[in-house]
Order: sequence, then structure tokens, then C-alpha cells
Amino acid sequence: MPFLFHYMNSDFSKLPDAATISESHLRIAPFINRTPVMTSNSFNEMLGTSLFIKCENFQKVGAFKFRGATNAVLSLSDEEVKNGVATHSSGNHAQALSLAAKNRNIPAFIVMPENSSKVKVEAVKNYGGQITFCEPTLAARESTLEQVIKKTHAVEIHPYNDYAIIAGQATAAKELFEEIKDLDIIMAPVGGGGLLSGTALAVKYFSPKTIVIAAEPEQASDAYQSFIQKKFIPSLNPNTIADGLLTSLGTLTFPIIMEHVHEIVTVSEASIIEAMKLIWERMKIIVEPSSAVPFAALLEKKVDAKNKRIAIIISGGNVDLNILPWIDKNENAK
Amino acid sequence: MPFLFHYMNSDFSKLPDAATISESHLRIAPFINRTPVMTSNSFNEMLGTSLFIKCENFQKVGAFKFRGATNAVLSLSDEEVKNGVATHSSGNHAQALSLAAKNRNIPAFIVMPENSSKVKVEAVKNYGGQITFCEPTLAARESTLEQVIKKTHAVEIHPYNDYAIIAGQATAAKELFEEIKDLDIIMAPVGGGGLLSGTALAVKYFSPKTIVIAAEPEQASDAYQSFIQKKFIPSLNPNTIADGLLTSLGTLTFPIIMEHVHEIVTVSEASIIEAMKLIWERMKIIVEPSSAVPFAALLEKKVDAKNKRIAIIISGGNVDLNILPWIDKNENAK
Repeated sequence: MPFLFHYMNSDFSKLPDAATISESHLRIAPFINRTPVMTSNSFNEMLGTSLFIKCENFQKVGAFKFRGATNAVLSLSDEEVKNGVATHSSGNHAQALSLAAKNRNIPAFIVMPENSSKVKVEAVKNYGGQITFCEPTLAARESTLEQVIKKTHAVEIHPYNDYAIIAGQATAAKELFEEIKDLDIIMAPVGGGGLLSGTALAVKYFSPKTIVIAAEPEQASDAYQSFIQKKFIPSLNPNTIADGLLTSLGTLTFPIIMEHVHEIVTVSEASIIEAMKLIWERMKIIVEPSSAVPFAALLEKKVDAKNKRIAIIISGGNVDLNILPWIDKNENAK
Repeated sequence: MPFLFHYMNSDFSKLPDAATISESHLRIAPFINRTPVMTSNSFNEMLGTSLFIKCENFQKVGAFKFRGATNAVLSLSDEEVKNGVATHSSGNHAQALSLAAKNRNIPAFIVMPENSSKVKVEAVKNYGGQITFCEPTLAARESTLEQVIKKTHAVEIHPYNDYAIIAGQATAAKELFEEIKDLDIIMAPVGGGGLLSGTALAVKYFSPKTIVIAAEPEQASDAYQSFIQKKFIPSLNPNTIADGLLTSLGTLTFPIIMEHVHEIVTVSEASIIEAMKLIWERMKIIVEPSSAVPFAALLEKKVDAKNKRIAIIISGGNVDLNILPWIDKNENAK
């Protein structure tokens, strides 16, 4: 059962400050890609904005998750990590943690649901992750992880509810602010809130005049609901193509989001697919559906973008190229 | 009928020299994107090389063709271009010339076969090109273009058999050499030979120790045959997914290729598709089939790449995303 909490109960004493984020950046810099910021004349004309795209799809393992995972793994002492790290994940965090652990020469134990896509399983194996499969339920994932940790004494690294993860994810926006000044708005997708809360902290410290707007699928709008109702609402039966945004907010990410995010907007599935295809077509880059959610909000005019300088953090580019949402078999058969 | 010629008959007096290519670069610099050079740890490990990818898929209009078209349009006098420019093209040159003309505020008259894909027709229109449709034969394209020019007095800009075009295409390799030193090999695909001959000239002037290797589809191997037999062999019934590489070499490009290209290798259709999908998957960039041909040659081990520093010029990223060669309707139906 998802737990309920009031955000004021959280312990803010360990909230990453500017120095912590800067130190995290120095710590992970030798391991991560400094990803490019791209622009598109086509999109600028279409939207009447100056748009800046921070391309975490070009990050190692194809997603921003590698920043946080690397920071978390490197933040632990030799004693703490001597038995390795562990997590349950069917997505980018599994790959990110596997490679981060490999870079520190320690094992990564990954609990994955048995219905995970073959391509994701192979990717985790390629990065050296040691996989334990379980039934595809949250309960089974959590109990299996507990068993794995009992046996291995590995340290659990949560995909987002961890200040070292949040500080790592904040470095994407920090890099962006080093290159692009006077941004009116920065947008990020929101799932568990690791990227969003890190981005919001980076704004607070490094670009305080910038407004933070999160975008979320209508069909997985728990963060939006939580934000509006000012209380934690779990993600129940999310149903979106944006498979990186299915999870609930965490006890650490939610309070940061309540405090430092200005707005959360939601978008339709059709807009997400349209946005994703437009980014592929015009920018010639591959982004995963979750990454297209903020741009979908611009297409839906959920954000007043006119004449603004807007940055979007593209979360990743891990897509199964054999199944593209705009190609259906009948369409393709003609 | 394709004409035959002996390459020694060409007039070399106007062959672009180093100064001409440098001037061309300065001329077009305000209009083109300086495209990034990307690397891939995954590919470097897979091939045992240091690979550098010059991303002309990120060029304006999505292809290197914009360099040559811009240089050709800007090289003409006001008097010469007062009635606009014209060409026949179903591909990237049509878009490139349309935008280059628009930037100079002159009309571009584009003859396109009536079976051109809707997406290409729309793109040309978006860039302001004025389209005349014709039957999808070379004879109809040429005679229609003749009529258009008779009527409009526009200047014909050939897609590759033009020294201003060749000098423009050479600037992609020139930029690459400014950033990446000590390259052992540079590879480019070959169709009409504009990119290849420009690349070979850039090597001659700016990186003379680098070896130039062209790659061509087996099923459109006229350049390979011409190169081996040292005489012009036209492209007859080419049958390849690499739709940018269907044309024959030109009277100006062939001699440069004979003189300055070290080797031409050919690859199978299956390798082209595999290479294209691998680039999408690992590098998260969209490249068109023609662009994948040099990388396919590395996959096929047609080039001794071990421990070499190899650059590949990615020619473009214009792909119909609704029809991907690795997705067939039955595969997708499961």
C-alpha cells in the first residue's frame, strides 16, 4: 500500500544546498557526459519562443538517471559500498545504477519484474548488473529486494527518494544555467520527482528568477493532484505511454516540489505522441515518450510561452525502436 | 541516356583550391549550422576504434546539401540570380536550394517527380520553393526543368556537378579537421559524389595524411565500378534503401574522386539497415539510410578499423518516420 504523509513532516536538514550540488557535480564530472543544449529554428518559429533543449538522451545509459546514480554510488564510503548496491527497477535507473557501480568496481544487484523488456534486461546485463527476477507487482519487487539485500548486504539506492540522487539530477539544470542565461521558464517531466526536485533546487541556487513548470501525463497525474491538493496522492493505475512517469512522488521529492515548483500542467497521450514525433522529425534526436511531455505542454498551450526563453530537460532516449507509437500495423500495411 | 566520358577530359583549372574552400566556408558560415562531432563509447568498444561522427543530420534542412546549395547561391552575382535559381530534385537538394534561395530573397524553382513523398513536397513548400511536378523519369525531369528555365530565366544549380557545390560540401570535412586532429581515415557515402569529392579536397588541403574511403550500397555500386574500371559507369537500375545514393557520378566529381579518394567499398542492404538502427539506438540520433552506409562498411569489416582514428560524415537525417525498414507489419502485429 502506498503510504500517506504530510510534506511538512520531512527532515529538511539534509536538503542539498548550493555547495552540495556543486560538489556533486565535481564528483560525477569525470564519469558523466556534459550533454549539449540544442535549439531548433523550426520550433522557435512554431511557438514564438526561444527554446533550449538540454539533451540528457545523450547522457551515458541514455538518461539523466546516470547523474543521480553516479552521485549516490560515489557519495558512499568504501566501507558502506563494500557489498555493492541494490535496487528494484524496470527502467533507466537499473541501467544507471549498474554502470555507476561498475565504474566503482562494486556489484549492482537489480531486481527486475519478469516481464521487463528483453532490451532493458540485456542493457542491465551489459553494464554488469546482477539481475534477480520477480513477479511484476510492487509488493513482489519490494520483498524480493529485501531478500536480495538480506543475502548480499548491499546498500539500497532508491531511484529518486534520496538526497544524493536528487543532488545528482540537479546537475543537469546547473550545467544548463552555466550556458544559457536569463531563462524565463525551465520545464521537466515529473514521475517520482527526482529530476524535477533537483531541477527546482538548481533554479533556487543558480537561476532564481527562472520559473519551474513540471509536465505530467493526464493519465498519470498524481503529482499534479498532489500539488493542487497540497497533500500526497499516490499514483494509482497510471496508464500512459510515458513509462518513466508511472511512479508516485517520494517523501523527499514532494516537499521540494511543493516549495520550489511554480506549476504542474498535464497533457494528453495524443499530445505526447505528437510531441515525441515532432522532436524526432525536426531535431533529428531520439527522445523517449517521458521526455516529450514538457514539449507536449507547449503544443497544448498549457504554458504561456510567447516570447519567452524556455528550457526543457529531455530526460532520456531509451526507446524500443521496434514499437513506435505512431506506427500501427494497419497504417504500415498500406 | 547517361553520357560517357573519360575523366582526364575535365577542365581542372577551376578545381576549388584551399583558399576557395576557406572563402566558401566564410561565405556560408552565417547561414549554416556548425554541426557537432559526436563520439560513442559503445561503438568504440564494439569496433576497437576511435570513431568521430560529424553530424550533418543536424545541418539546416537536415542534410549537408545545404552547405553546397548556400555556397552556390551566394557565389552568383546579383545580376546572375535576379531571376532566381532552379533544379530538379526529389530529395534534400530541393529543400536545400529552396532555403538557400529564400535566405537571398530570390525564388527557387524546383522540378519534382509527381510521386515524390508528401513530406518532401511539404518541406520544399515550407522553405518557399515553387514546385513544378513532372513524370517520374529522368528525361521528364530534365525536359521540364528546361521549360521552367526557359520561362523564368532562373539559373540552374546542379545538385553536385558544380564546383561551388563541391566547395560548399568540402566545408563539413574542413570543420571536422579543425576539431579532430590526426585522423587516420575519413569516410563518406557516395551518390553523385558532391560530398565525397568535397571531402577528398578538404583532406588534400587540410588533413593530407588522412585516407579517404567512400562507401556505397552494393545495389547501387556505379561509383565503385567507375573507380575500379577507371572509367565512368552510369547508375543503372539502382535498388537500395539509401535513396540519397541513386545517382551517377558527375563530370566534375568523378575526376576528383579518381585522383583523391583512396578506396571505395560496398555494403549490403541488410548491413545498411542494421547500421542505421544501431546508430539510432546507441547514439540517439536520427540518420537517413544513406548516412548509415559508411558505418555499415565498418560493421562488415570492409575497412581495417582496428585502433584507428576514423571519422564518418553523416550526410543527413531526413527519414519518413512512418516507414522504418526494421519494422514490418507482421513483426509489429504481435
